[in-house]
Amino acid sequence: LIARHFRPLATHPGALGLIDDAAAVVPPPGHDLVLKADAIIGGVHFFAEDAPATVAKKALRVNLSDLAAKGATPFGFLLSLALPKEIGDGWLADFAAGLGEDARAFACPLFGGDTDRTPGPIMISIAAFGTLPHGTMLLRSGPKAGDILVVTGTIGDAALGLALRRDPAAGPGLTGAERDHLLHRYLVPQPRNAAAEALRLNASGGMDVSDGLVGDLGKMCRAAGVSAEVDVARIPLSGAARAALAAVPALLETALTGGDDYEVLASVPPDKLESLRAQAAAAGVDVSAIGRFLPPGDAGPQARFLADGQPLTFARASFSHF
Amino acid sequence: LIARHFRPLATHPGALGLIDDAAAVVPPPGHDLVLKADAIIGGVHFFAEDAPATVAKKALRVNLSDLAAKGATPFGFLLSLALPKEIGDGWLADFAAGLGEDARAFACPLFGGDTDRTPGPIMISIAAFGTLPHGTMLLRSGPKAGDILVVTGTIGDAALGLALRRDPAAGPGLTGAERDHLLHRYLVPQPRNAAAEALRLNASGGMDVSDGLVGDLGKMCRAAGVSAEVDVARIPLSGAARAALAAVPALLETALTGGDDYEVLASVPPDKLESLRAQAAAAGVDVSAIGRFLPPGDAGPQARFLADGQPLTFARASFSHF
Repeated sequence: LIARHFRPLATHPGALGLIDDAAAVVPPPGHDLVLKADAIIGGVHFFAEDAPATVAKKALRVNLSDLAAKGATPFGFLLSLALPKEIGDGWLADFAAGLGEDARAFACPLFGGDTDRTPGPIMISIAAFGTLPHGTMLLRSGPKAGDILVVTGTIGDAALGLALRRDPAAGPGLTGAERDHLLHRYLVPQPRNAAAEALRLNASGGMDVSDGLVGDLGKMCRAAGVSAEVDVARIPLSGAARAALAAVPALLETALTGGDDYEVLASVPPDKLESLRAQAAAAGVDVSAIGRFLPPGDAGPQARFLADGQPLTFARASFSHF
Repeated sequence: LIARHFRPLATHPGALGLIDDAAAVVPPPGHDLVLKADAIIGGVHFFAEDAPATVAKKALRVNLSDLAAKGATPFGFLLSLALPKEIGDGWLADFAAGLGEDARAFACPLFGGDTDRTPGPIMISIAAFGTLPHGTMLLRSGPKAGDILVVTGTIGDAALGLALRRDPAAGPGLTGAERDHLLHRYLVPQPRNAAAEALRLNASGGMDVSDGLVGDLGKMCRAAGVSAEVDVARIPLSGAARAALAAVPALLETALTGGDDYEVLASVPPDKLESLRAQAAAAGVDVSAIGRFLPPGDAGPQARFLADGQPLTFARASFSHF
């Protein structure tokens, strides 16, 4: 099954055309291998009716996003598929075609995999591998007090897209193009691998934003033992997200806590900010400075979000503006 | 969740104590990295009521078995867990403890992982990594006409154990110890990593037996473009398996096609057979010569099983003895 649909993706000679049980690969000399595993499950991370090609791209891209945030170049991946019986050959062919497009686009070939039947929902587990010069992986614990906090791309689109997917009335007054933009950002993330080298050369730490900017920045602060202060007005938003928030201001919490951004959150020493911006821009990726890292206060490492100089606090389902 | 239960397994410095999103590791210079992914699913590959520590060991060992068959030394693994809501903290603690015992016993530390909630059955996806000197991986396509066909350990125990698990009356006349042996071989495979170096130094090809000796040898023949002839009387059986087959001769098909053996099937040039046997025996692993590889006949590569000089044929559920 794997071989029939997925052999065209196994372009690395070490994958042996998927005819063996395992692959044998050699990372470039002097390089570390960066390892990441992430899975997506039907009905949890995507909708069962989503097009198989977009499901495939999401499964690979959530892993590629981690490689980008670590400063690594994609090397290849392993695929474990658990398939319910309603998944037929046509679905799998479309899935493999979508996966193959991304494997080529991101130069991340399939090294191998396995397929099982499951009585549960479809699950796509990917282990992705990247490479980078020895000792240069960007760490979650990298940020230092005094560093600038930056983020790639725009924040909140996917969470707003998911809200629209669940309730088309959630975005009153949006144009069709704005709705489509948000819905697409949820369906198919755009990992920032194009900026990985710029990040590796300039940033002091990095992680991807997958569980919401607020929660992920909090994790970064705790790992690094520093605090962060974010100027909410400087968080980059797409035109569609701005339109949604203008109509329903309470959607700001959705945008900042909702997840599925797959952007990169990084810390940058002030003297490296302009070279990061220039190199990332040359690779087609916008980088926005949204705040700064500080020594931890008496309450320990924490992230503060300031709007008009006032701190925002976020609850599970709502936020209050003091 | 991962960090709390699984940090003790992350003994490799590149795993960063699981506080980061990814690991960074360096394979030994001059070595290839061998990659394998395999998943097990509750209700498919194990029973929901199985002890969590044995489930953990099975999940890791089915992957370790592939590394052994490729001649590779375990290096580490990534873990993706999909957990239904009925899996609580106690189950996970026991699972992590069992996994940790095997991570230590096989020198295969946890590099990282992720956890998701699922509305389906529990699924444990592992991507395992091994290392070996560059270019020495044993291939499924390695066997040459003239090579001896060998297998480690004993065949059929796990399939007979599963039959007993499904129907305690399936093994009439077995002693308690015999039943326990077969049931245990199904629950917790014994991968042959101890013999990996002996295999790498002496064998011309290898794969693990996970889907039944008959089917897997057929795959090996097709990959290698050779045929194989097996003397059924020389297939190594445990005392418990012999007792089961003596009582119910039709269980021979179960033993040879049923799967879950996790032994190694290898091809060995005749002049290397004795050194393989001696080196494997020194590592505590029995190696049995059970047949030979031949040029493919007019019908193409195929595996023939001979009992008293007569070929056996296997159906899905029964075999006929001409």
